[in-house]
Amino acid sequence: MPVNPIEWEEGKVKIIDQTKLPHKLDFLYIDRVEDLREAIRQMKIRGAPALGVAAAFGVVLGVKESKAKDMGSFQEEVKKVCGYLQSSRPTAKNLFWALDRMYRVVSEVDAGGNISPDELKQKLLREAFRIMNEDINCNKAIGENGSFLINDGDVILTHCNAGVLATAGYGTALSIIYKAKGEGKRVKVYVDETRPLLQGARLTAWELLREGIEVVLICDSMAGEVMREGKIDKVIVGADRVAANGDVANKIGTYSLAVLAKENEVPFYVACPLSTIDISIPLGERIPIEIRDKREVTFFCGKRCAPEGVKVYNPAFDITPSGYISAIITEKGICYPPYKQNLYKFFHRRK
Amino acid sequence: MPVNPIEWEEGKVKIIDQTKLPHKLDFLYIDRVEDLREAIRQMKIRGAPALGVAAAFGVVLGVKESKAKDMGSFQEEVKKVCGYLQSSRPTAKNLFWALDRMYRVVSEVDAGGNISPDELKQKLLREAFRIMNEDINCNKAIGENGSFLINDGDVILTHCNAGVLATAGYGTALSIIYKAKGEGKRVKVYVDETRPLLQGARLTAWELLREGIEVVLICDSMAGEVMREGKIDKVIVGADRVAANGDVANKIGTYSLAVLAKENEVPFYVACPLSTIDISIPLGERIPIEIRDKREVTFFCGKRCAPEGVKVYNPAFDITPSGYISAIITEKGICYPPYKQNLYKFFHRRK
Repeated sequence: MPVNPIEWEEGKVKIIDQTKLPHKLDFLYIDRVEDLREAIRQMKIRGAPALGVAAAFGVVLGVKESKAKDMGSFQEEVKKVCGYLQSSRPTAKNLFWALDRMYRVVSEVDAGGNISPDELKQKLLREAFRIMNEDINCNKAIGENGSFLINDGDVILTHCNAGVLATAGYGTALSIIYKAKGEGKRVKVYVDETRPLLQGARLTAWELLREGIEVVLICDSMAGEVMREGKIDKVIVGADRVAANGDVANKIGTYSLAVLAKENEVPFYVACPLSTIDISIPLGERIPIEIRDKREVTFFCGKRCAPEGVKVYNPAFDITPSGYISAIITEKGICYPPYKQNLYKFFHRRK
Repeated sequence: MPVNPIEWEEGKVKIIDQTKLPHKLDFLYIDRVEDLREAIRQMKIRGAPALGVAAAFGVVLGVKESKAKDMGSFQEEVKKVCGYLQSSRPTAKNLFWALDRMYRVVSEVDAGGNISPDELKQKLLREAFRIMNEDINCNKAIGENGSFLINDGDVILTHCNAGVLATAGYGTALSIIYKAKGEGKRVKVYVDETRPLLQGARLTAWELLREGIEVVLICDSMAGEVMREGKIDKVIVGADRVAANGDVANKIGTYSLAVLAKENEVPFYVACPLSTIDISIPLGERIPIEIRDKREVTFFCGKRCAPEGVKVYNPAFDITPSGYISAIITEKGICYPPYKQNLYKFFHRRK
């Protein structure tokens, strides 16, 4: 890993302020849940798996000063903190999944066990660490599973950042590239800059360059032409939420890439942990899509780049119907269509 | 017209410095061909039809100080100036078409006529005016022809700037929208911001707002999702060069839009004058595509937004195969597929 994207250090959540990259590798040490939620909202930390890990530690921060004397009132406090963190961003499944796991630490405790709030705080911290370490292991497994699909000399197109910086480490889509490179395969990566917040230009290009991988940066509008010119062997992206039928919510622009990949007969892969898959949602249409501030589009680095008074539509994600997706690469293996049947099996397979 | 994009004023070419928009409506008064060529290269003036008009006046500037005493040496000077302007940008057909017309003013003159260089200078200026006025009339005719395709309440997506600012006046794609509005049809326009140089955000949004048209600005990566959500009735774009078979070179991102439009069953129209059509080129593949400076991608509004040392691929245009194009709207009427046969007829129809 070029850096540790998220750590727990002396009672604080240590994260990279990703809004400062690629100019500055700046770390934030957060010890209040309010600041963590704000860091999530401002996308100082982002990426579905990383949001899950951040939220888990956020719960620890949120109750560390709790004066609750009994289990019942402590449970109530945890519930409140989870609700507060849940409302930070609406799309990434991992956020809700991690908060759910954290809440279960206190809700599923044996009521007769008479466990103290202090012991529960320790349990919460251990669960947050477990979520973080599981994510790291998941990402490695995604890399190993996905690398199977990569040939020596492949040119891969990716969008946004599904790398180290989007997870607790290694990344999802980029984990596959790192693993393939580790196995001695030559890979070259085209990176979409990913407007409006330029995660491709700022984050993905940065972390791939640090790992010594050949990167070619393009604007989002160039991806189609690059595929048409036959330059791309595979597209690999991450996901923010996958519906039970395999429809994928991911960074805005993903749907366009998927359509263009199909039109140009380029395989289109989605890499994500099972914690990103929401089997409670049957179709992508039901995934809530975050609409973000218009100033992300009309301003850049504090500079206006559009006329005043113009209306803006700024969805942060889009839905790629499963029919465009060649495979979904998870820590449990590669899932091929039909996703409705096959994703389900991943959740009911023995560990 | 909200403004006059190009004029001839007291021996100078007066243009809007489009790099300053939407912040400032700044005019440049250019009296040296070198400065005009530089303005074209820096995209202070851009848009295929506008480049044709600018180049025509550029020839006038280039020979105005000519000391040539005889027709032969004057012809040589005109040829040299035409070659110099030709090398400014490689893709837009109108540039070459206009320079060809200008050169013919001096090359087709009757050698026995004993016409003086001063008279030829007058002829060149008249030809430049003719090219400008023809463009204005062409654009009006494109608007009238294209407006036929627009229904009351239509929501139209456009890319880059094919408006007043891309022509001598009225625009091509946007001329249709202006005409439809003038006929009392309600239209709403989604505008792609058009990275890297943001002609959509800076120019198209600006001129449409000035004309009182409802504009929604989106990033290029959002166009697919906007179509998938059923928000768009028609896509209309301009063109920089059209091959004889109907393949279209236009601003990078056009190909992606065309594929996405087809996938979502949205009609995809190209609006351009016949002077943009290059019947000497059989296929889009043969159209030279300008590759521009990497800093257009790695910097945003003057600020670096990508890590140092990253490679960039920055094609200014892409090729949309004719199969994606529902119709090409010209001043002579609407051309439907098969383009190979039908475009040809437009050139051999009596005026």
